[in-house]
Amino acid sequence: MEIAVHPGLASLDQGYLFEQIAEEITAFQKEHPLSRLISLGIGDVTRPLTPVVAEALAAAAAEMATESGMHGYGPAAGYPFLRKAIAESYSGLACSIAPEEVAVTSGGKEALGAVLSLFDPAIPVWVCEPAYPAYRDCAGCAGHPVQALPCRVEDGFLPKPEAVTEPGIIILCSPNNPTGAVLTAADWQMWVSFAIKSGSLLLTDSAYAAYCTDPMLPHSVYAIPGADRCAIEIGSFSKSDGFTGLRCGWVVLPRACVCACAPAQERQPLLRHWMRWLGCHSNGVSYPVQRAAEAALSPIGLQQREKALRIYRRNAASLEQFFTAAGLPHTGGSHAPYLWVQCPNGDSWGWFRMLLATCGVIVTPGAGFGAAGEGWMRFSAFGRPEDTAEALRRMEPIFRRSTREENE
Amino acid sequence: MEIAVHPGLASLDQGYLFEQIAEEITAFQKEHPLSRLISLGIGDVTRPLTPVVAEALAAAAAEMATESGMHGYGPAAGYPFLRKAIAESYSGLACSIAPEEVAVTSGGKEALGAVLSLFDPAIPVWVCEPAYPAYRDCAGCAGHPVQALPCRVEDGFLPKPEAVTEPGIIILCSPNNPTGAVLTAADWQMWVSFAIKSGSLLLTDSAYAAYCTDPMLPHSVYAIPGADRCAIEIGSFSKSDGFTGLRCGWVVLPRACVCACAPAQERQPLLRHWMRWLGCHSNGVSYPVQRAAEAALSPIGLQQREKALRIYRRNAASLEQFFTAAGLPHTGGSHAPYLWVQCPNGDSWGWFRMLLATCGVIVTPGAGFGAAGEGWMRFSAFGRPEDTAEALRRMEPIFRRSTREENE
Repeated sequence: MEIAVHPGLASLDQGYLFEQIAEEITAFQKEHPLSRLISLGIGDVTRPLTPVVAEALAAAAAEMATESGMHGYGPAAGYPFLRKAIAESYSGLACSIAPEEVAVTSGGKEALGAVLSLFDPAIPVWVCEPAYPAYRDCAGCAGHPVQALPCRVEDGFLPKPEAVTEPGIIILCSPNNPTGAVLTAADWQMWVSFAIKSGSLLLTDSAYAAYCTDPMLPHSVYAIPGADRCAIEIGSFSKSDGFTGLRCGWVVLPRACVCACAPAQERQPLLRHWMRWLGCHSNGVSYPVQRAAEAALSPIGLQQREKALRIYRRNAASLEQFFTAAGLPHTGGSHAPYLWVQCPNGDSWGWFRMLLATCGVIVTPGAGFGAAGEGWMRFSAFGRPEDTAEALRRMEPIFRRSTREENE
Repeated sequence: MEIAVHPGLASLDQGYLFEQIAEEITAFQKEHPLSRLISLGIGDVTRPLTPVVAEALAAAAAEMATESGMHGYGPAAGYPFLRKAIAESYSGLACSIAPEEVAVTSGGKEALGAVLSLFDPAIPVWVCEPAYPAYRDCAGCAGHPVQALPCRVEDGFLPKPEAVTEPGIIILCSPNNPTGAVLTAADWQMWVSFAIKSGSLLLTDSAYAAYCTDPMLPHSVYAIPGADRCAIEIGSFSKSDGFTGLRCGWVVLPRACVCACAPAQERQPLLRHWMRWLGCHSNGVSYPVQRAAEAALSPIGLQQREKALRIYRRNAASLEQFFTAAGLPHTGGSHAPYLWVQCPNGDSWGWFRMLLATCGVIVTPGAGFGAAGEGWMRFSAFGRPEDTAEALRRMEPIFRRSTREENE
């Protein structure tokens, strides 16, 4: 036998979307070394860590420099202090979450690959179109057949259970990246009922929950009774607390979630298998990072995070105002840190290159989120407010003109 | 289709070795709340972080609390500053390693699962018997057939290429956990030649390289010409710099390492696939942790790490003296932080329980490293010196007696 790469990995597209974009930008900068680019592209935060988080991180560093405060191998699923704090952040929902059902991870993307590798590779994974590209890529790398779950503009970019023709793992992200679409309680109820009836599993991504300001909109699938029997949730501190560079997230896998255990086909708590997997694949997340995450969930941490969230929400509001004024169809912005905007007469990579060349503004081409994203582009609200304002000023002539042309 | 767990995961043994041991200890402590246990079991460090590492960690925390010093998403394969420092740590070897061939990971265990998931699951993985249990578990979870590579006492616990009857991925760890066996330059040369000739891939684990004090013994497979064509190396800061709780390691995957790319079966650099995999599975390692790792590799870091290494080496020397005096067959200790000791007349779990009950000393039963480890036990040199000395005092009557009985 020759050493061959995994067929799922070999069949991925050439490059990961955001790395491809980074390459184009680097090439552009080489040719135009003086232009100051503004990124409304990759959804990366710009506000610093909150004081309480940075202090917890520094305190843990100092602790580990002492013999009595040294922390070696931590539990694979995270320290009890953080598992408890995360479990408590779910309190008051229809499904109560115990600390033992929470596993601390190095982030949402890292958790996604781990969770998808728990299942028989023959099980299909249903991925929204358009969607965050790591869903499709991670499912493919784990050997799963990937099935498209269309999200149409006429449905407000929300997926429909009718499209799921075969039970499998269904990935849902609300508030959505890239479209900003939000599932209502009724939508969630529909998905939970469908999953239980069809024997499917929901894999929900709550990375943007902190941007959902309407108290009527659920922040988690566990707001729905019965969700603990059919849903695994991936959460992250990245977008709520600026942890994109610090790396911490979590997985909720409720004990009630059972699965068939091949080859015996007995039904067993999936939680047992997940903990077994974690035990041999991980020695837990960095201790200082777990202390920082604990601080983020403390009362003062929750208060301090609001400052950054307010800034990003204001950015989103000005993006929304701008495209409303430009008369361009768009979604998102209200409960999500992204504006999803229709490209006037053009392909999305074309618009990406044109906005880069003429305005020095970086956006994300919709085609990068799958074929269904073609004709759209994503604007991120995570920039500095002054950069966001400047980007809008630079883009005004473009979008005014295109609107005029369309109206002619 | 019913949602079933991955057959490789479902067929693992009940529990991960070190978690199983932890459970037995917890149960014992509940029954004997007053006994002070000493762990020579799990290979976890006890010395604090060095000052320069702790300072780098704290400085990065402070940096991230400022707008200009905030670090968001880092490169999936790690920051250039750390990739460069790791590549330079390989300088002077037969194969030179470029920064682009290094990927920063959250640790050795985490890297192992990632690397094994890159390959066609049909490829067999050859695992030493006895061995660190995560090798077998991670290979099984990724769907690979696991083949045993016997390491016999009469061969000094070194594996032999003759045992590899089919090309595949061959995992080698030197200095070895648990046996302390060390591959010489001639042994490495034999494995590299065999891998190239047979079309196998070596996956080497250099976690204990810092304990190898003989300058004639290679610290890395890349000391051998041609290794860059057939070997991937996993390294870690855990045992050299006390990073077991901080989590940082690396993977070297040389550009010369090519593989067949299913389904096309073209030969391509594996490095390209590895970077693609990383791009969709990781957002890199925590920035402050990468700064800490950079400090560990600085000239002052390399000097400060020696203090802890000296302490652990002295522990290993006193363990070796003890078992030599006791007349018990053993390996390791000289170039490894483990003593691998034959159990006098007894099964290794029996000895684990007996030493726990009568001496309050925790060791690792050899059977936990696979069937070939039965009849042996592992003593770790990572304890505090005063604890190690106390453990030897407590165990003296046991081992004196057993020696007497054997001699009768």
